[in-house]
Amino acid sequence: MSKKNAVIILSGGMDSVTSLAYAVNKGFGCFSITFDYGQKSKSEIRAAHYYSKFYNCKKHKIFQIDFSSFSSSALTEADKSVIDDSSNKIPSTYVSMRNIIFLSIACSWAETLSCEDVFIGANAIDYSGYPDCREDFLKAYEKMINIGSKTGSEGGNFKIHRPLVNLSKAEIVKLGHSLGVNYKKTVSCYQANEEGRACGKCESCDLRKQGFLDNNFPDETLYI
Amino acid sequence: MSKKNAVIILSGGMDSVTSLAYAVNKGFGCFSITFDYGQKSKSEIRAAHYYSKFYNCKKHKIFQIDFSSFSSSALTEADKSVIDDSSNKIPSTYVSMRNIIFLSIACSWAETLSCEDVFIGANAIDYSGYPDCREDFLKAYEKMINIGSKTGSEGGNFKIHRPLVNLSKAEIVKLGHSLGVNYKKTVSCYQANEEGRACGKCESCDLRKQGFLDNNFPDETLYI
Repeated sequence: MSKKNAVIILSGGMDSVTSLAYAVNKGFGCFSITFDYGQKSKSEIRAAHYYSKFYNCKKHKIFQIDFSSFSSSALTEADKSVIDDSSNKIPSTYVSMRNIIFLSIACSWAETLSCEDVFIGANAIDYSGYPDCREDFLKAYEKMINIGSKTGSEGGNFKIHRPLVNLSKAEIVKLGHSLGVNYKKTVSCYQANEEGRACGKCESCDLRKQGFLDNNFPDETLYI
Repeated sequence: MSKKNAVIILSGGMDSVTSLAYAVNKGFGCFSITFDYGQKSKSEIRAAHYYSKFYNCKKHKIFQIDFSSFSSSALTEADKSVIDDSSNKIPSTYVSMRNIIFLSIACSWAETLSCEDVFIGANAIDYSGYPDCREDFLKAYEKMINIGSKTGSEGGNFKIHRPLVNLSKAEIVKLGHSLGVNYKKTVSCYQANEEGRACGKCESCDLRKQGFLDNNFPDETLYI
């Protein structure tokens, strides 16, 4: 009589919380995983913990992985000492292979839990510069993980659920509201303070604000 | 006039050291990466460091990742507290998604270094039970990483070199010898001692011994 389980990649931001609410609504028993990868805003991680509890996740795992030692991004403390050659094509907030690494660890945990469903809040519309947020990537990832895993080679089938992949921010907010999500405690701001309050000025804050505005919903964000 | 660079996944075992020697022979400037993922035999990591120096790697990175917190395997300290359901199909030495995670971190580092060549000593013949050691997986991985990365989406092309994928252990030893590899300090044994000396009794030791024997080479392994 146990529910079907799923692993949910949960950053604590608007998108991943919507994806968690979506999975809960679909009847999955949820195991959430949050990556502490040296991002500047630790309040995201606390938000992830809050929503994991709120949605009765069976377990919330916080997994530390030090991206700064092999990658560099404006989202983390950059260690550029290993870089021989620099390229100006990579945007400063791009964390190289972030979703690929997150998905791989989430799928490994899922396999250990004997479950085949993994949710990611990846979204191609507002972040089209990130190649690992797009449908064609997620499709190729799903194929690869089924060839390269015990699960896939023993007749199972990993499903990488990406309910938001083709939604705009306004559509995500609309979907979230239809599922009863209260976004007050989600953290999207790149420079949120310790309590998770948003600056209201950065690109991420603007995008989020517009999401509420386009729906004629009041902005639930807590600002500094 | 700088050489083309490559990232080499280097465990310190026979296969990965052969793959490093192969890359050096092909003229690559090598950046080696070794994963400290809670494996019981730490002498492998020292062996990786020894060969990185021996082959003049530009950098040897030791990257810690705690597999025991999301996976369970006889190769690591198992934390089974998160397991809801157990399956008897997974062999005890299988580490769920190990090569997928290693490749993803190696490719992330490669992208940061602006290089597109990654070497892995994966080998399908002797470890056919491991789905992430096979050619079809590596092909799917290569496709996925090029779709999901900046490198691939900006016209670059990651190449996942797998020079040993279809070689038997005897053929690997033969290739290594043709490249001048001395295997004395490589560690293959699952229960090597602190100095890296092998037990001579486990499955991995047997396989390695046979590799020398089939070539009529003296066994270079240091035993306890």
